[in-house]
Amino acid sequence: MKQQQLVLNERPNGLPNADTFAFKEINVENPGHEQLLLKTLYISVDPYMRGRMADGPSYIEPFQIGEPLSGGVVAQVVTSKSEQFQQGDIVTGMLNFQEYHVVEANQVRKVNTFGLRPSVALGPLGMPGLTAYFGMMHIGEPKQGETVVISGAAGAVGQVAGQLAKRAGAHVIGIVGSKEKANYITKTLGYDHAIEYKHGDVPRQLKEACPNGIDIYFENVGGEISDAVWPLLNTFARVPVCGAISSYNLEAGEYDIGIRVQTYLIKARAKMQGFLVGDYADHFKEAYEELGEAIASGELKYEETIREGFESIPDAFIGLFTGENIGKQLVKVAEQE
Amino acid sequence: MKQQQLVLNERPNGLPNADTFAFKEINVENPGHEQLLLKTLYISVDPYMRGRMADGPSYIEPFQIGEPLSGGVVAQVVTSKSEQFQQGDIVTGMLNFQEYHVVEANQVRKVNTFGLRPSVALGPLGMPGLTAYFGMMHIGEPKQGETVVISGAAGAVGQVAGQLAKRAGAHVIGIVGSKEKANYITKTLGYDHAIEYKHGDVPRQLKEACPNGIDIYFENVGGEISDAVWPLLNTFARVPVCGAISSYNLEAGEYDIGIRVQTYLIKARAKMQGFLVGDYADHFKEAYEELGEAIASGELKYEETIREGFESIPDAFIGLFTGENIGKQLVKVAEQE
Repeated sequence: MKQQQLVLNERPNGLPNADTFAFKEINVENPGHEQLLLKTLYISVDPYMRGRMADGPSYIEPFQIGEPLSGGVVAQVVTSKSEQFQQGDIVTGMLNFQEYHVVEANQVRKVNTFGLRPSVALGPLGMPGLTAYFGMMHIGEPKQGETVVISGAAGAVGQVAGQLAKRAGAHVIGIVGSKEKANYITKTLGYDHAIEYKHGDVPRQLKEACPNGIDIYFENVGGEISDAVWPLLNTFARVPVCGAISSYNLEAGEYDIGIRVQTYLIKARAKMQGFLVGDYADHFKEAYEELGEAIASGELKYEETIREGFESIPDAFIGLFTGENIGKQLVKVAEQE
Repeated sequence: MKQQQLVLNERPNGLPNADTFAFKEINVENPGHEQLLLKTLYISVDPYMRGRMADGPSYIEPFQIGEPLSGGVVAQVVTSKSEQFQQGDIVTGMLNFQEYHVVEANQVRKVNTFGLRPSVALGPLGMPGLTAYFGMMHIGEPKQGETVVISGAAGAVGQVAGQLAKRAGAHVIGIVGSKEKANYITKTLGYDHAIEYKHGDVPRQLKEACPNGIDIYFENVGGEISDAVWPLLNTFARVPVCGAISSYNLEAGEYDIGIRVQTYLIKARAKMQGFLVGDYADHFKEAYEELGEAIASGELKYEETIREGFESIPDAFIGLFTGENIGKQLVKVAEQE
């Protein structure tokens, strides 16, 4: 049996486009002892993958040209040669982007979807949810009455981060790129205020929305939006740095130029800290439990933007950088059976 | 009896100059109950004072036009109306810049100079020494074998910070502005290597000096020098942000423009943290003891640059921004009696 696989065709310079990707037909193998045959249901496309498309030192090895892209996948067990899994089980893992997988049983973990669509394991109950959790709760540490600002507030991470801050009693302001997203975060998620950066004058909008300054800035986008945040940081402010999507598509030789943060960090005695979800592996269990309960009870809400069909992965990925998604951007590859 | 006082004449736009300051003749008052009459011996001029010359929100109230400048002072008790002090005692405190002071006894503290020149209480055993201590030991937390880079490495703070990192077993590289300072930090202080930024190509010099990357960057200067540090940060690097002297004299409407740090902080999962010595008041006692013992034993070395005479305070202050001082910049106002 044949299947499609998505490979890196060439390294992008600037924004990825159709030439960045190539589809390849490969065989579906048979699972051996302690192996599983999986069918891909959902694939997650994430901004951090842009970093892996470049060739250079980072926290994660670069994708290789002609080799498969990979990322978060939710799949269903077709054939199990392991006692740990049964046919029909829903599993998740970091897997190549292809329609079927033969994996060792320990390469994936079974998903408790709390009765929800299994894609939840790629969103609020997956990497983005955990990222929001550790960034907000372990670095941000929101307290009752504090002011929390989140950029990329309607994204996969932002939507969870803001609700966690609300649960802690903070006043939460989200920065978003459209009216639709503004409505989503204020009306559905319960953020106190939305700033639409495309309306311009972000410094003025921020000042008006944060008369008491900013205690936590959850950084997802970088760029000029963040430049406007620094002067408003309160004493002992915390800035979990999760992403800087505005800078991911710089062309070769371009630098991310803006306002240097040093004097603002001194004035506010503020802390700015980059982090990766993997650094908190010791705390995954408690985070899954807390997020799972909040999602199952309906307290923690979330949105997904789903494209259909394996062939739509490139468009779904490129769309991340034009801000078209609300919540987690996913590609649905096959129906659950 | 009359004495000189130094006041803020006008707020500087850009680098302070002679017009920034004015001298004023005032009376020497008589001390009352529980008060002291002090004679100024040494005055400390420090880069952070530039921030107080501007009118705007900061961690410390701005100087007022026509009102005295103030800062760290070492003085000798001329007359004591308090049982806590005796004539001849050496004391230190944050005091107005003038030749004599009448203060409440609790406004100053007695100095143990460990047999050294009493100016030590304005340098390694004063605010700069404590600043280096908390930035390096509480935020930087150097470990055996790590690579530590310090900008402004021959300054009042830098000279202590680097030696603390050496004591912890780190490999220490200092960035300085002259051959004389390079010799001082390598030959006298025992830094492993000096980078002279005026020789140009700081990125290349840094890369060559730090083949294993940078674990701690102790930030004193900001600007392009620091821009060259970010790509070299190792995983879980720490950046105590003590100062950014290169940006203190921006003119009205100018911004400190350079490379944004977000992507570097994410890649390295690095922490950048502004701090003030006052935030660590609970730990002053242990810091004084540790620094005092190390200074008294000769293990911790330090340098001072001393100008003579009350009237030289403006020049001493302006000289901070042209990098003329090695170690602490002081003004000697009177001889100890």
